[in-house]
Amino acid sequence: MRELEEEDIDKGLLKALEHLSDMGGLTSKEARKIFAKIKKSNSSHVLVAVVDGGRIAGVTTLLVEQKFIHRGGLVGHIEDVAVGQDFEGQGVGSALVRAGIGKAKELGCYKVILDCKPELVGFYERMGFRKHEIAMRIDISRA
Amino acid sequence: MRELEEEDIDKGLLKALEHLSDMGGLTSKEARKIFAKIKKSNSSHVLVAVVDGGRIAGVTTLLVEQKFIHRGGLVGHIEDVAVGQDFEGQGVGSALVRAGIGKAKELGCYKVILDCKPELVGFYERMGFRKHEIAMRIDISRA
Repeated sequence: MRELEEEDIDKGLLKALEHLSDMGGLTSKEARKIFAKIKKSNSSHVLVAVVDGGRIAGVTTLLVEQKFIHRGGLVGHIEDVAVGQDFEGQGVGSALVRAGIGKAKELGCYKVILDCKPELVGFYERMGFRKHEIAMRIDISRA
Repeated sequence: MRELEEEDIDKGLLKALEHLSDMGGLTSKEARKIFAKIKKSNSSHVLVAVVDGGRIAGVTTLLVEQKFIHRGGLVGHIEDVAVGQDFEGQGVGSALVRAGIGKAKELGCYKVILDCKPELVGFYERMGFRKHEIAMRIDISRA
């Protein structure tokens, strides 16, 4: 488990993400550009599960938020936990979440939050999370 | 409605935030240091509602997340909507949320998400949000 490096993009990163969301045929070159933006944003840590031979089994992102409240506390947001189809059922997802919590702890976050579908509540509860609030969403039209 | 400037810190910012969370006696000097970190993180936009005389009636933060999925899409996270006690019931909260959505739109986000207490679901639904997922939380001990 370590932070994403550019070379990982062709070693299964896109395939793992595809399992989470339609990637719309994103090319490796486009993904590299996006990764450069993520690094520039300076608050996201992309964590990957690497298996033998350097293949990427899964990925998640820890977004770190600097708050005014809690005396300038840091909050970690775990986003987009994705496991490649070939690596399902092997504990990769929970290992990624644990890595996210570990990174958040290392950085000094006082809590980690995430939004999940109702059917995943049990999975996260077993990892020590508790139901906290209601996640609301509004879509923005490009028009 | 505009982005926070350092001078606003003494014009009611801390008082508005106090209404949201115990500020633990945060001084103006400490708040300036935190604001410098927020600006450095490069992905947070602190929006303030300014009333006559330059007083801060309320504040919220739009955290912008660069994703790999959605072809490198941007997601806006609205955090810590806080209205000063003297300005309650005047629509400041909804104006702040609208400003957050507007800023997210301007930056090209495809959605805005936020976590709220169950009793605020109706408030956000009236603004166009819909219930989406379950927000989970884990606290990190400093030990």
